[in-house]
Amino acid sequence: MDLDRLLNPSSLAVVGASAKPGKVGNVILGNLKEGDFRLYPVNPKEKQILGLRCYSDLSSLPEVPDVAILAVSATTSLPITIECVRLGVPFVIVVAGGFAEIGLEGGSIQDLMLAAIRGSGTRLLGPNTMGLLIPKRKLDTLFLPKERSPRPAHGPIALISQSGSVMVGLYELAEDARVGLGACIGIGNKADLNENDFLKYFGKDEDTKCISLYLESFSSGREFAESARKISHRKPIVAAKVGRTPSAQKAASSHTGAIASGTDLMVRGVFRQNGIVQVDDDQELLDISQALSCLDHLEGNRIAIVGSGGGYGVVATDYVTSESNGYGLTLAPLAEGTKERLRKLSPYFASVHNPVDLTGDVTNKMYDEVLEVLQDEHSIDAILLILLFQPPGMTIGMVDVAEKWARDGKKPIVICCTGGGYTRPVLQRLNERGIPAYGSISRSVHALGSLWERGRYLGSFKSAASKDAK
Amino acid sequence: MDLDRLLNPSSLAVVGASAKPGKVGNVILGNLKEGDFRLYPVNPKEKQILGLRCYSDLSSLPEVPDVAILAVSATTSLPITIECVRLGVPFVIVVAGGFAEIGLEGGSIQDLMLAAIRGSGTRLLGPNTMGLLIPKRKLDTLFLPKERSPRPAHGPIALISQSGSVMVGLYELAEDARVGLGACIGIGNKADLNENDFLKYFGKDEDTKCISLYLESFSSGREFAESARKISHRKPIVAAKVGRTPSAQKAASSHTGAIASGTDLMVRGVFRQNGIVQVDDDQELLDISQALSCLDHLEGNRIAIVGSGGGYGVVATDYVTSESNGYGLTLAPLAEGTKERLRKLSPYFASVHNPVDLTGDVTNKMYDEVLEVLQDEHSIDAILLILLFQPPGMTIGMVDVAEKWARDGKKPIVICCTGGGYTRPVLQRLNERGIPAYGSISRSVHALGSLWERGRYLGSFKSAASKDAK
Repeated sequence: MDLDRLLNPSSLAVVGASAKPGKVGNVILGNLKEGDFRLYPVNPKEKQILGLRCYSDLSSLPEVPDVAILAVSATTSLPITIECVRLGVPFVIVVAGGFAEIGLEGGSIQDLMLAAIRGSGTRLLGPNTMGLLIPKRKLDTLFLPKERSPRPAHGPIALISQSGSVMVGLYELAEDARVGLGACIGIGNKADLNENDFLKYFGKDEDTKCISLYLESFSSGREFAESARKISHRKPIVAAKVGRTPSAQKAASSHTGAIASGTDLMVRGVFRQNGIVQVDDDQELLDISQALSCLDHLEGNRIAIVGSGGGYGVVATDYVTSESNGYGLTLAPLAEGTKERLRKLSPYFASVHNPVDLTGDVTNKMYDEVLEVLQDEHSIDAILLILLFQPPGMTIGMVDVAEKWARDGKKPIVICCTGGGYTRPVLQRLNERGIPAYGSISRSVHALGSLWERGRYLGSFKSAASKDAK
Repeated sequence: MDLDRLLNPSSLAVVGASAKPGKVGNVILGNLKEGDFRLYPVNPKEKQILGLRCYSDLSSLPEVPDVAILAVSATTSLPITIECVRLGVPFVIVVAGGFAEIGLEGGSIQDLMLAAIRGSGTRLLGPNTMGLLIPKRKLDTLFLPKERSPRPAHGPIALISQSGSVMVGLYELAEDARVGLGACIGIGNKADLNENDFLKYFGKDEDTKCISLYLESFSSGREFAESARKISHRKPIVAAKVGRTPSAQKAASSHTGAIASGTDLMVRGVFRQNGIVQVDDDQELLDISQALSCLDHLEGNRIAIVGSGGGYGVVATDYVTSESNGYGLTLAPLAEGTKERLRKLSPYFASVHNPVDLTGDVTNKMYDEVLEVLQDEHSIDAILLILLFQPPGMTIGMVDVAEKWARDGKKPIVICCTGGGYTRPVLQRLNERGIPAYGSISRSVHALGSLWERGRYLGSFKSAASKDAK
């Protein structure tokens, strides 16, 4: 299905647009005003809203809009949807809650709405949806003011979320870390358009380097697995399927009307088989998507850890190598020649074994030289840089050094910067330049683990293909 | 042993004080200048440093200082330590690295230093130590400038750390979240004073509500377990024992000269038996210490989840109830009467089952009323509040509402606020007022899990005591 007119519309109508600040129909209109498309407020009681001419109903517009956003109550959404079908509006976004997620009564309105669009050219997003955010196009149908909920910049990750609040939480985390997002799609009750439609769309979208999903249920588990299988060998897919326990599954049902779909164990199996990287919450979804959208998969699991704080080197080694609470990686065994070269570059009390500890005497220049040496070490599949910015020899110029080796070097680099307010801008700059950087050791090692998980999946795929060829 | 003159000194000398900005001996002197104690720079080449009269050597000071901080090289530290012993300085802090952690040569200097203090009244902190930070007394022997590494406010947590960088990372995390710390002690190579000395001290210190340790090895595992056992039934102890794997243990040895002490499995057993709550890294250490220092243990594991974002309610339910990736808690089964009362307070499309979802129509007032209702629900052992600040009805005034129920209510409250830059100040204010608030669901549920872990430990302790009495 072609979702282009939904995700790249020429014209939008906001039904229930309001002149009253703070109202849903006012906030949505305000957020859309900056976009490069024709925008029509619809409200029979107003002549003009936010400087835009207001129309009494959809049929009075000078054209049939690509998208109608229904900022009206659940019960009013039904007749407006019927009108959209009659006029041939291709996409309707139903914002209101109060449908299948609240039980039988709401469910029957949702059923009537579905009956109205059946067989027509009109498709429906929602109901009970947070809507769409496409930063590059300033397409922002959210009913949350930007000052309360800062939006992220454009980037290579497409997010499909069954929960509005998790979508918002995730894009705010992204904005705060300066990680860009290409699209955020709230599928809500997914009465019509669902995760499979968007998965296929972003699978083909060249701007999207990673597809990220927050799901509480599957509209069709089989279709999801098949689509994912086709996409995942060329584009990473990361998914949180929450409602892992019976209690949580029940909670999901009263949230988006989700029907239990498979035990956690089944889901994990299906994900693994089809190359979907599984995560458990919004922060993990963002972290892992960031790594997979910026870096290639790993060909092996041997990690070189380089930092200036010995303690963090130990903590990182724990997360790298522990079976019970770690990520299934190993320490790269550095060759004697490599250690010799490192010894010449670093203070005499530094440790040149992996994890390399350059101590508080570290400088940007020392990192530059060490990274140069590590390029030639065949035992290394990826580098974890633990950058601490308290030592006087470390400055913001380190971002340029990291960028140089991330761009021109042979080894994938993931960065961890621990610390407080002084460190945050450094993390932000690294992320802005597409170098995955995290504020904690466990998150950065988790990122490396996911790159290796993807490497193993692609490896098994390749080895299966080479067997087939024989 | 009485550590009072170390942790609450009347006078300090900085040997190797420097007039050159950026030098270790300059930064330490600058950080100490604000404290309410007599401060003596020692340097034969200077008359005055940072406005303080400078002395040529320790024996020229007008008094024997309580503490001598040695901001000189490893080799110079040895003769100065010998001089401290001769003068009867009770405490020496040896900042330099280059001792046992770098191998035999450094180890023999460390041995000589130990030999020098043996049988004397002089005790030694370090070598290879980050030093001390006691915010309440402005006692700050760190060689890191404050503008690079912002210090936390005073609070009820005492941190004992074998790693300087982890100590710094942790207090910066604390400062950023506005969590107060009572003391940060870097024990470094712990050639003399070690974790057991400080554990016992803070066990008796009335200001300290929680003792937190980052350890790479045990100076005496038996002594640690025995001290912890005596303290933990009245004061919580949280510890990260890193070097969980053989690779990480090896890394620890080149970091602080730590000698492998017990497998991870053994450590976990000893910790559990002696009521020590185990964590794996700095963020967990801070999070769990914060919860345990602010709140009483839980008497049961039944959690009520209340929020405005249905998706986060589901994620929280996962972490509460999952056996494989959760914290061993259950959902409190709300009575019909409670649900009826909640239904009257909340929008018709809200969910009044646990997890309670008040939807985007939530207001501070609604939370206030809901929290009032939950006080009377006998099935609830603790409340997880998931506060999202995007809805227009939510304001910073919610901090007062939360504080009221945290202070006057019957149920322990842990708060989660997800989101970006708009949410951070809210988290900070909650933490400042002693209400544990976290930026992610998993961290907040982990905090609740640790309160229940402590409840179980104290329960088993009580039931053992009652058996003994029979």
